[in-house]
This record gives sequence, structure tokens and C-alpha cells, in this order.
Amino acid sequence: MRDAFHEELDAINNKMVELSHRVNKAIEQATHALLTADLALAEQVIAEDNQIDEIQHALDAQTIDLMARQQPVASDLRALVVSLRMSADLERMGDLAHHIAKSARMRFPATAVPPELLLTIQEMGAAAAKICKKTSTVISSRDTVLALELEKDDDELDHLHRKLFIALLDPAWPHGIETAIDMTLIGRYYERFGDHAVSISRRVYFMVTGEYAKKS
Amino acid sequence: MRDAFHEELDAINNKMVELSHRVNKAIEQATHALLTADLALAEQVIAEDNQIDEIQHALDAQTIDLMARQQPVASDLRALVVSLRMSADLERMGDLAHHIAKSARMRFPATAVPPELLLTIQEMGAAAAKICKKTSTVISSRDTVLALELEKDDDELDHLHRKLFIALLDPAWPHGIETAIDMTLIGRYYERFGDHAVSISRRVYFMVTGEYAKKS
Repeated sequence: MRDAFHEELDAINNKMVELSHRVNKAIEQATHALLTADLALAEQVIAEDNQIDEIQHALDAQTIDLMARQQPVASDLRALVVSLRMSADLERMGDLAHHIAKSARMRFPATAVPPELLLTIQEMGAAAAKICKKTSTVISSRDTVLALELEKDDDELDHLHRKLFIALLDPAWPHGIETAIDMTLIGRYYERFGDHAVSISRRVYFMVTGEYAKKS
Repeated sequence: MRDAFHEELDAINNKMVELSHRVNKAIEQATHALLTADLALAEQVIAEDNQIDEIQHALDAQTIDLMARQQPVASDLRALVVSLRMSADLERMGDLAHHIAKSARMRFPATAVPPELLLTIQEMGAAAAKICKKTSTVISSRDTVLALELEKDDDELDHLHRKLFIALLDPAWPHGIETAIDMTLIGRYYERFGDHAVSISRRVYFMVTGEYAKKS
């Protein structure tokens, strides 16, 4: 049977998984809103970002409270420190989904993404969601093999990001500067979303092994 | 006389101030390298980012070690948790300076910034450095009034950021998409740099008062 400390740690971990599910829903909905100019859905993602922030605050308060009451050392302390960092990454991923939803809202009733980039952005959104789902599994399972795998998934997102830039830099690009700026920022948001997911997986690796994963 | 715990906390705080000075040097040098196409200086900023990362790792290890040995509660624990978060913000600010230096290197021997935007980028660099210097003071003095003031300084940076977009969106913009993409990303790096400085000042406010500062 788990002792009181580890039961509370499990509860924190479960909430972290729930937070990651909300972030996943946010990035999926933000991508959908962006691709289909769905204003109501964009507004929903923007509104629900507050809930993500609130869950993070509550989670951190619970983590710090557990630190104060149980005064853990060694790997138990490490788990709580890592927990604070993972929640910060997830909160930031929520912000990035929120930024994407705001881009969708800003261009409504037009679609922010020009037709020839719809597929690339759809793929970036799908890659980001895939990474986020794996991140949830890494958080819940503490699977270090899967944690390392996530860096390769992020390479896929980086590849799509480069593809986006190639399209923007095509001399035949017909959409002008404003759309290029939008797409540059949107591409950046997806890229950073992936980076934070990789951070989380590296933190889990560190928490379990006590060592930093080598940079791929 | 300070007890052993508070002496160690002071030592951590002093290192945090030193880290912020390095970040300030990085953003000043990155801006200079960007504006003058100074490749050697850009390379120096890129190389020295590793040192910033190493200082952060050492600082976090010391903070976690102090948590484990002294098992602080209440405001002492809060100070250590905030310390971990501030070092993460400073490390990220170092990354952003590093990104700006890489933009300078990528366009060498050309200047990444077109002539009509040199002044705006110079002002953004100066505003970022000013905010970073104030952040150092907030960290060392724990001055909550100065901490709140930093949000207003960041508004100045946001104003310059909007000015940058207005220039990019001028129908007479003569520099094409590639330069617009560069300037969009560089503008974003300065903006995020300021955001992290504001985060740090809000964390100091929370550490001292136990309350979250109201969003301005």
C-alpha cells in the first residue's frame, strides 16, 4: 500500500494528466477554429484558457503544501520540483493554443490560413496534438522510453515548420506581408508548443532516472 | 545576525542577481550585433548562452539542496520555489538573446534589420535592457513598488512592438517577405524577453507579500 505522501503525489500526478488533457483539447480546438474560421470555437478556447491557469495555480498550491507538510528529500523532493516545472510548461502550452485561437478570431470572418497552407497547418496541428497526447501518457506512466521518443515526434513538427517557411519564401507567394506575418507567428506558436512538450518529457526522464537526457 | 538558512538564501539570491547581469549583457550585445552586423559579437553571445544555462543548473541544484537539507516552510519555502521559477525565466531570457544573436549571424555580412527599422529595434533593445536592469534591482532589493513599475516599462516595449508591425504592414514596405519574417520573429523575441522580466517582478511581489499582483 502507498503511504500518505505517495498517495498525495499520485493525486497531483493525476491532476497533471487532467491538465494535459485540457491543453490537448485546447490545441485541437484552436487548430480547428483556425482552419475553418470558427469564431465560436475560437472564443471557447480563449475563455477556457483561464480554467487551465486556475488548474495550474491550484496544482502548484497543492504541490507546495505537500512540500511544506511532508518535507520530502531525494527522489520525492525531485518529483515535486519537477511537478512545478511541468505545470508551468502545460500552462504555457495552453497560452500558445490561446494565441492560435486569437489569430483565428482576429481574421474572422476570413480564414487566417491561405488555401495552399491549410494542409501544412492541419499537419502541424495534428503533430502538436499527437505530441501532447504522448506527453499525457509520459506523465501518467513515467515511461522513459516514450519520453525520449517524443523528441523524434517534435522533429516532425520542426520539419513542418520549415516547410511552412519554404512556402512563405516562395517568390510566387501571393498573399502579401500581413498573411506572412500571421503565418510566421502561428508557426512559431506550434513550434514552441512542441518544445514545451519535449521539456516535459525530459523532466519526467530526469525525475525517474535522476539524470538529464542527452540532447538528440 | 542571519541564521545558516538565510545566509544560504542570500547566497542564492546573489547568484540570481549575477545571472540577471549576464542576461542583461547578452541582450545588450545581441542587439548591438544585430544592428551593426557584428559577427564576432553574435558568436560570443551564442557561445555564452551555455554559461547562462550552466549557472541556472548550478543555482537550481543549490536551491533544491537547500530545500532538502533545511526543509523550510511558509515564506522560506515560498522563497525557494520562487527562486526556481525566476532562474527559469532568466534562462529563457538568455535563450531569446541567443535567438537574436543567431538572426544577426544568419544574415551576416548583411544587416538583418533594414535601415528604416534600425531606430525601432535599437529602442526595443534599449527598453529590453532597461527592464532587465530593473529586474536585477527587484531581485536584489525585493522592492515591491519597483516590481509593479516594471509592468509599465514593459508597456513601452509593447508599444515599440506595435510600431514595428505598423512599419511592416505599410503598403510601401520595400523589403519583401524574408525580411518581414525576420523582423516578426525578432520583434517577438524582444516582446517575450520583456514578458519574462515582468514574470520575475510578479514572482518577487508574490514572494514578499504572499499575494499575486493584480494584472495591470
